[in-house]
Amino acid sequence: MSNITNDPDEVLNEIAEKANVFEGKEAIRAILREIFLSGTIGTKSLSRKIKMPIPTIAAIRKELEKVNLISREKKGAILTKRGLIFVNDVLGINYLESHSCKKCDSTGLALPHEAEKLIAKQRIFSERRPKPQTEIDQAFGRPITAIRRAYLMLENNDLEGREILLIGDDDFTSLAIAQLKTNAKITVLDIDTRLLKVIKEISEENNFHINCVTHDLRKSLAEDLTNRFDVVLTDPPYTIPGLELFLSRAIQGLKDESGRKIYLAYAHRPPKIQLEVQNSLTKLGLAIQQLIPGFNLYEGAEMHGNTTYISILSTTDSSKSLITLDFSGKIYTGELNPTIREYQCKNGHITEVGLTLETKNIEVLKEKGCPVCGDTEEFIRISRRKV
Amino acid sequence: MSNITNDPDEVLNEIAEKANVFEGKEAIRAILREIFLSGTIGTKSLSRKIKMPIPTIAAIRKELEKVNLISREKKGAILTKRGLIFVNDVLGINYLESHSCKKCDSTGLALPHEAEKLIAKQRIFSERRPKPQTEIDQAFGRPITAIRRAYLMLENNDLEGREILLIGDDDFTSLAIAQLKTNAKITVLDIDTRLLKVIKEISEENNFHINCVTHDLRKSLAEDLTNRFDVVLTDPPYTIPGLELFLSRAIQGLKDESGRKIYLAYAHRPPKIQLEVQNSLTKLGLAIQQLIPGFNLYEGAEMHGNTTYISILSTTDSSKSLITLDFSGKIYTGELNPTIREYQCKNGHITEVGLTLETKNIEVLKEKGCPVCGDTEEFIRISRRKV
Repeated sequence: MSNITNDPDEVLNEIAEKANVFEGKEAIRAILREIFLSGTIGTKSLSRKIKMPIPTIAAIRKELEKVNLISREKKGAILTKRGLIFVNDVLGINYLESHSCKKCDSTGLALPHEAEKLIAKQRIFSERRPKPQTEIDQAFGRPITAIRRAYLMLENNDLEGREILLIGDDDFTSLAIAQLKTNAKITVLDIDTRLLKVIKEISEENNFHINCVTHDLRKSLAEDLTNRFDVVLTDPPYTIPGLELFLSRAIQGLKDESGRKIYLAYAHRPPKIQLEVQNSLTKLGLAIQQLIPGFNLYEGAEMHGNTTYISILSTTDSSKSLITLDFSGKIYTGELNPTIREYQCKNGHITEVGLTLETKNIEVLKEKGCPVCGDTEEFIRISRRKV
Repeated sequence: MSNITNDPDEVLNEIAEKANVFEGKEAIRAILREIFLSGTIGTKSLSRKIKMPIPTIAAIRKELEKVNLISREKKGAILTKRGLIFVNDVLGINYLESHSCKKCDSTGLALPHEAEKLIAKQRIFSERRPKPQTEIDQAFGRPITAIRRAYLMLENNDLEGREILLIGDDDFTSLAIAQLKTNAKITVLDIDTRLLKVIKEISEENNFHINCVTHDLRKSLAEDLTNRFDVVLTDPPYTIPGLELFLSRAIQGLKDESGRKIYLAYAHRPPKIQLEVQNSLTKLGLAIQQLIPGFNLYEGAEMHGNTTYISILSTTDSSKSLITLDFSGKIYTGELNPTIREYQCKNGHITEVGLTLETKNIEVLKEKGCPVCGDTEEFIRISRRKV
């Protein structure tokens, strides 16, 4: 790519191909624009803004550096002179201001002053969470995520006077809801007894009255949990069978009425996969009423750039008849789409990580350090393959 | 309904039935909650907040008055003492604050200071619009609607350096985009030559370079408009065939690449109908990336409570192969779902309105006045039936 005044699509496509980016040239354009808007920006912030995984962003940055469109500064990536010409004159991007709402972080929901206190308390609760079991797709939401969800439900008339079911709760959303001190009745189902034990303890310490039930969601709900709830919230495994199973349980738990709501957290995925998600929802008679990108934030979750969307779904008359009952198939990412990624430490040593290997993910690798030199600082993903 | 301490569902259901509300008891609960939050609130504001048509809201208000849960004040509806007990103690709704973001009107998009000027200018442009032809589902967006859409596209990297197609433009969104003075290239297709003439005139007066093409969207796009655009915006007829047709034209006009975006404005509808919309999108290989309720505001549009949502859709590899080509069926609301509504003026005279009648809608009736007494002030919808 010697001549940046060529067809810009060609330039962007070339970078996308070299960085092995499924999302193609638009992802490269979006990243260049974001760097232009920010002045300098780190990989983590880029990942959150563009809603793509950190390793992918890192790979793109590397390619952009190679062709001298960006350079690396202390605070992150910055456009070179050549990069600035490409963005301004060739791509035609000149507008410098962002109009995403800072007041509500573009969620449409402005947290009140007292939310700070609730977030602080939620942080203390969260510190008692056991280590996430990545094999069952646990990835812990940040304290603000649970608090945001609770306020969103309150705002939408889905907390007060409601019976609420959480299908899985590694994010401790139940505790955030309880913190709002409405008269909502809360039930949590989870397969992980370690998590339930902590929720139960905190609930008792704080007089929250959260009902905790150990349940493998592959099994149908018990009768006393069926046709009972007003609202469900779930952040299921980001696989189609996992999604359909968790949503089936959600529908089972809800009252047998059209218009009952499900709050669904799900990963930002390329259009083709989001279309599969949409197809699953349609198959279950669930209508999307709202979809807020970037609503949920997570503690270092390599897979989805630390953020997922929340969507509000409505049941229809047909939903109850369309669900999956007992299920014995695979639902977790590691079972369905196991991948092996190669990471290179700053000294050039390569380590493989993956759910099927000893080092299950980049977080574990960073904690243990490079097996050769012990480096824990900087790892770049250099390849990714299906097992 | 003598005893409000009965099962609240029963109370709410009874009101929903009497007011003939398809959406059922949850709509009644939402309205009571909104009145509680607001203190007093007028029918129009209620309609916008609850996203239900004004006549439906008016009918519910009437039923709530009858059972002495609300009363009528100058500024609108207010809870009676009995209503307050029902809301607080029986429904369990006590939280008085709303956390919807005032800064961005819950759109996630904070308009900059200078947007005020653009809105003012857009208002001057809009005054030159010819009368809406309700037979072809025209309903004019308010000036802020077009400006919001333009900023949303700018924010999302969909204006600068882009070729943009507007499939129908009775909202004058093309002029709002042009007002932002980016290098975006704008093409407008519409069947209404009156509208195109005004857009063309304003474009020439302001040096906007908007390309206007008269086109009946039932016909396939000309070759020079096919596979050409980066982004499409459309606010189609709110019927399934109308939606599928306009989206087919959108896909035809877009470049043949996965991930091209369509901005779709569509009415808030009950879950069952929103599910049909979703099914149409899925059939066309379009993935919903974002859905912002209440984003678009309209000049007095009886049918959908003055507001619609905007959703951002992404094409996938299969979209191009799934579209409708030439189409000769019905697409407009008046052709597909003609209804006749009876309105009563304050003196008790009843007038029928409907697209198949002389008085096509409530706006026309208000303008002409009651045929018996000439009253133009207050009309209550008392019935609605399919033709």
